Amino acid sequence: MRLHLFIASLLCSAAALGQEVSSPDGNVRLRFSLTAAGQPTYEMSYKGWAVVKPSHLGLELAKDSHASKGMRETSLMDGFTETAHRTTTFDETWKPVWGETATIRNHYNELAVDLAQPSSKRTMTIRFRVYDDGMGLRYEFPQQDSLVYFVIKDEHTQFAMTGDHTAWWLPGDYDTQEQETQESRLSEIRTRFHDAVNWSNSSVSVFSPTGVQTSLQMKSRDGLYINIHEAACVDYATMHLNLDDKNLVFDSWLTPDATGMKGYMQTPCQTPWRTVMVSDDARDMLSSNLILNLNEPCKIEDTSWIHPTKYCGVWWEMIVGKSSWNYTDEFPSIKLDQIDWSKAKPNGRHAANTAKVKQYIDFAARNGLQQVLVEGWNVGWEDWANHWKQDVFDFVTPYPDFDLKALNDYAHSKGVKLMMHHETSSSVQNYERHMERAYQLMNRYGYDAVKSGYVGDIIPRGDHHYSQSMNNHYLYCVKEAARHHIMVNAHEATRPTGLCRTWPNLVGNESARGTEYEAFGGSQPNHTVILPFTRLQGGPMDYTPGILETQLKTWSDNPNYVHTTLVGQLALYLVMYSPLQMAADLPENYAKYDDAFQFIRDVACDWDDSRYLEAEPARYITVARKAKGTDNWFVGGKCDEHGHQSTVKLDFLDNGRCYDCTIYADAKGADYEKNPKAYTITRRTVKHGDVLKLTEARGGGFAVSLMAK
Amino acid sequence: MRLHLFIASLLCSAAALGQEVSSPDGNVRLRFSLTAAGQPTYEMSYKGWAVVKPSHLGLELAKDSHASKGMRETSLMDGFTETAHRTTTFDETWKPVWGETATIRNHYNELAVDLAQPSSKRTMTIRFRVYDDGMGLRYEFPQQDSLVYFVIKDEHTQFAMTGDHTAWWLPGDYDTQEQETQESRLSEIRTRFHDAVNWSNSSVSVFSPTGVQTSLQMKSRDGLYINIHEAACVDYATMHLNLDDKNLVFDSWLTPDATGMKGYMQTPCQTPWRTVMVSDDARDMLSSNLILNLNEPCKIEDTSWIHPTKYCGVWWEMIVGKSSWNYTDEFPSIKLDQIDWSKAKPNGRHAANTAKVKQYIDFAARNGLQQVLVEGWNVGWEDWANHWKQDVFDFVTPYPDFDLKALNDYAHSKGVKLMMHHETSSSVQNYERHMERAYQLMNRYGYDAVKSGYVGDIIPRGDHHYSQSMNNHYLYCVKEAARHHIMVNAHEATRPTGLCRTWPNLVGNESARGTEYEAFGGSQPNHTVILPFTRLQGGPMDYTPGILETQLKTWSDNPNYVHTTLVGQLALYLVMYSPLQMAADLPENYAKYDDAFQFIRDVACDWDDSRYLEAEPARYITVARKAKGTDNWFVGGKCDEHGHQSTVKLDFLDNGRCYDCTIYADAKGADYEKNPKAYTITRRTVKHGDVLKLTEARGGGFAVSLMAK
Repeated sequence: MRLHLFIASLLCSAAALGQEVSSPDGNVRLRFSLTAAGQPTYEMSYKGWAVVKPSHLGLELAKDSHASKGMRETSLMDGFTETAHRTTTFDETWKPVWGETATIRNHYNELAVDLAQPSSKRTMTIRFRVYDDGMGLRYEFPQQDSLVYFVIKDEHTQFAMTGDHTAWWLPGDYDTQEQETQESRLSEIRTRFHDAVNWSNSSVSVFSPTGVQTSLQMKSRDGLYINIHEAACVDYATMHLNLDDKNLVFDSWLTPDATGMKGYMQTPCQTPWRTVMVSDDARDMLSSNLILNLNEPCKIEDTSWIHPTKYCGVWWEMIVGKSSWNYTDEFPSIKLDQIDWSKAKPNGRHAANTAKVKQYIDFAARNGLQQVLVEGWNVGWEDWANHWKQDVFDFVTPYPDFDLKALNDYAHSKGVKLMMHHETSSSVQNYERHMERAYQLMNRYGYDAVKSGYVGDIIPRGDHHYSQSMNNHYLYCVKEAARHHIMVNAHEATRPTGLCRTWPNLVGNESARGTEYEAFGGSQPNHTVILPFTRLQGGPMDYTPGILETQLKTWSDNPNYVHTTLVGQLALYLVMYSPLQMAADLPENYAKYDDAFQFIRDVACDWDDSRYLEAEPARYITVARKAKGTDNWFVGGKCDEHGHQSTVKLDFLDNGRCYDCTIYADAKGADYEKNPKAYTITRRTVKHGDVLKLTEARGGGFAVSLMAK
Repeated sequence: MRLHLFIASLLCSAAALGQEVSSPDGNVRLRFSLTAAGQPTYEMSYKGWAVVKPSHLGLELAKDSHASKGMRETSLMDGFTETAHRTTTFDETWKPVWGETATIRNHYNELAVDLAQPSSKRTMTIRFRVYDDGMGLRYEFPQQDSLVYFVIKDEHTQFAMTGDHTAWWLPGDYDTQEQETQESRLSEIRTRFHDAVNWSNSSVSVFSPTGVQTSLQMKSRDGLYINIHEAACVDYATMHLNLDDKNLVFDSWLTPDATGMKGYMQTPCQTPWRTVMVSDDARDMLSSNLILNLNEPCKIEDTSWIHPTKYCGVWWEMIVGKSSWNYTDEFPSIKLDQIDWSKAKPNGRHAANTAKVKQYIDFAARNGLQQVLVEGWNVGWEDWANHWKQDVFDFVTPYPDFDLKALNDYAHSKGVKLMMHHETSSSVQNYERHMERAYQLMNRYGYDAVKSGYVGDIIPRGDHHYSQSMNNHYLYCVKEAARHHIMVNAHEATRPTGLCRTWPNLVGNESARGTEYEAFGGSQPNHTVILPFTRLQGGPMDYTPGILETQLKTWSDNPNYVHTTLVGQLALYLVMYSPLQMAADLPENYAKYDDAFQFIRDVACDWDDSRYLEAEPARYITVARKAKGTDNWFVGGKCDEHGHQSTVKLDFLDNGRCYDCTIYADAKGADYEKNPKAYTITRRTVKHGDVLKLTEARGGGFAVSLMAK
């Protein structure tokens, strides 16, 4: 048995100097010490059981090209002495601008250890914050004469695991996290890596045969749920984990820039928080606010213009292949300043045309959707992807069949807004050159939200999606957008680390395998009961659910099908929390299932309260949420390919009050493969304490609305 | 004897198919042919003598990361057949917005050869333009289905030399051309490379032991002057030359980006022109307009706001080390958004303060200088260089002791303008993010010119000063500046290739070793009689002449001295043509030599005519210029460390007219080292046909003004 009592290890190392700090409830304990070589070390336990065995902390510095010749840069790895430490307690409740709950408690005990490295005359502080559901640690570098600028070759924050846990992981990659999640023991990661076809994503470039991404969800043989991620990744590269699979020790592995370096630092500064969440109840993984709490408070003074949004859009029909983003097929390639669009020959498949967008506006207005996304409205889609093309879009010029002013006027007359779309094709320099004018155009026409995209290799060439400079770029966009009162939903950007607390106009990200993959061959049925444990830890995902016509061949030439039941799609509006929820299917498909679509009309996307009722990674999730500013509740359950029997006790309802309950359930015999669209809708009146017994089909789920009478 | 008659080689290769084209005067002949392997080849002669022996043309393409797996990219090197060719004649006279002459004749014969590569189904055209003083060739890639996007691994344009010429060369470098010019035989380049101390510039990173920069000036044993450079380098990397010193064949060597690739192309497109200038008279090298002619006509419709400028500035005293750009020494480093400048402790050495700038404004107004450059006016200089610092300047925030509004108002009240300064520290992304606001600030306060700087390593990191993306950046700045009616003088940018014809608001560049090096240890006395043959071929240089107090120790702790005589400095206003001329010394130094300073007051910086009277690379240059819109002439002569005896026949003066002639000459015994400030000023009346005999001291020169009566 690998797991051992933490108390034992504490006793063993009692001889060494060290500091301890516990969570407010005492369940999580963290111990810091220095090795004989002066190497910072920490260990962590939960309810007496080791979670992280003694693990080293430190940073390997690069010899800067500017450093004096022959001078060797001293790494911040060892040779440290402790000069001081401080423990403090913090307890505050704050209100997110949008979220799963109306308020969030930020309650932790903190240990800050000041370290000196006499050989280099440098100091740094390691700060630990210990919560009831985990801990965060970061390195801080005070301003000092002997440490002003430095270049990080790599950060070496270790996470020594106590056993061969089951892990739900993505292969390490500097540019994408759109792979299928792998489930394996830690010791099996290396073997699994050999079978490249598993990745289902062609752009994977593996940096190590045991490299994985965060957030990494694990489960120990003893039933501990452990999650490693990071919080507040600002002016720093995104962290991966590289596993020493002999010793089961993870080491942080930062995303490099084009020169292979991983961070350019100027004191005073700090790293992001490295987080370990832990519980013996999987539901705590989902209800944790540890990542948000480790971020800075909101920096936007007036947030009145930020709002959760349900939207539809001209999108799925292009993804499925029935229509096109581009306007013409006439040219092998285009140069924006050399095309007379009015004379270009239309290909007849361009979806973002005035007539169609008007239909979407009508559809949105009829169904209470606030916005209509239109992709492919602007010139440049003829050769936008994968050509290393610098001047790919200008973000302000519509195709000749898209009447920018008339459509916005029409939408506004119906109480609807258009949602802007900025595909950058990862030509970042080009986007930054046009950004101000693009945002000004949005302000002029009344757009208040933009979906941006970063498909393909980054320009400046050699850079990666998750590098320090790209992370700075994404945040630069969010800040500039905030100046213009614009909400941002960035796709293919780096995985979020809770920055939406500080910048709540960052209302969404993709940063994982979204619904689009259902049109590209499908995702595993358990995909959406993994993502809340992993991808969603850092912030909401614009997953674009709601594909009720799960069989694409019924209306297109696409032979693929969605790997959920129809009802499973409804469940996603609850299981996959986001303040931005798309009704992604076509209006004509919703017309076919209008009674089921009623749930999408009804469901909220902002909440006063959320209760995770059942959860097991990759198996099932059941959650009840109370719609913001109302007494209405919505409950959703989603499961994997084995189906699930769910028992929902309605003890969250107000006592003595009646609720109109509508249950959208998989019908008997429903099955995501063989019979995906068999569903039942039943209505009854319920009250506090009633129990709903719900059967989720293979790849299915359920959705329940509870309207207070 | 290596040189052989071109006619012989023509006869030898007569069996092969090929095309010929001659210059309008018949002196330059160019022959194109394909080898048996279908490799494009050219050779070039001048007055029957070979200049370039048969040399291959072609491009090596990279296998793009996006290319299908296993597919090998076919290079555009061989396997070509000729499908067509066209010869045409062009003769046009155009008026530059500013320049050495009022009009420029563009007269050439052109040969365009269409080539097909059957194996790849691709086509390209090689276009030759043959002038009386040389030729340009470029590759053109028409839009075609089988060649849409491609990545250049390297361009292989050969220049096979006919002998072991003397060359004036700079070591190849992707980031600087501020080295001392080397003079050696071609065969001696490799040996000279070993002696790194010769470079006098620490940032040299050599890519090849026989790599040199362009423009490369050579002289054959038979007295032919040959110059290799390029024209119209747009959306392409700057070209270096790599010498096969066994066969004396140069091969083009492009500047790579961070990934090592050298060009990202989308058809239709073309390379810059590769130029070979040739004459048996060195003066023709200086009066040639071949580079300008190969550029596109002016693209700015209204050029009324573009004007040649004489200026002074707060600059030399910082270069010499007497005062500082930065305001405070209080902090190890600064973060722009975290400093309260009003509370920062001044270091007492900050030059760009309101009182001093007012003195410079007064000085400019008194002496007919139109503008005052102020460096160090804006926050960020505390730690601006060599730290890989991204957010180094914001370009809009003045130091607390620089009253932006009051100083501009004061200057305008005196008929003077301030000249803006934007040091980017090569943090290019940061500059682009702030550029629009920075230009807007200039418009608001009435600046119409900016000196920009690119000191240090480029951010995005891994990129180089002379790469395709950086060349695009420099041009982006010029175009954006033009939108704001702003003239640009970019220092440390890529070497110019005549783009100032197309964008005449690009009034200057540094791109070579400027006067500043006189304060860092000095430049060779012949430096300024080399630069007009090399650096100035592509466009004017902001050399910042006029250091009349050549001995810096007389007013500072700097032990260095200028490696010319005082009069040599005056000569530079003529020998080093530029529409932007600085009077770079301090007002108090000019006060000491006020009679000599009169020449700087008088001299023009825009010309109706220019006559190169004497020239020999690295030895001497004598030029007479007629001031724009007047009948006044100015004559300047500059020589190397051996002195020079100059005979100037005034046959360029109007017949029958008298001129007040003022001669600024080195006094007897003058010497740049031992007696630099010994000068005579003599006045007389002269007329057409008179002869001036002028003695130039070691490192000296002369300057003459001829004012029409």
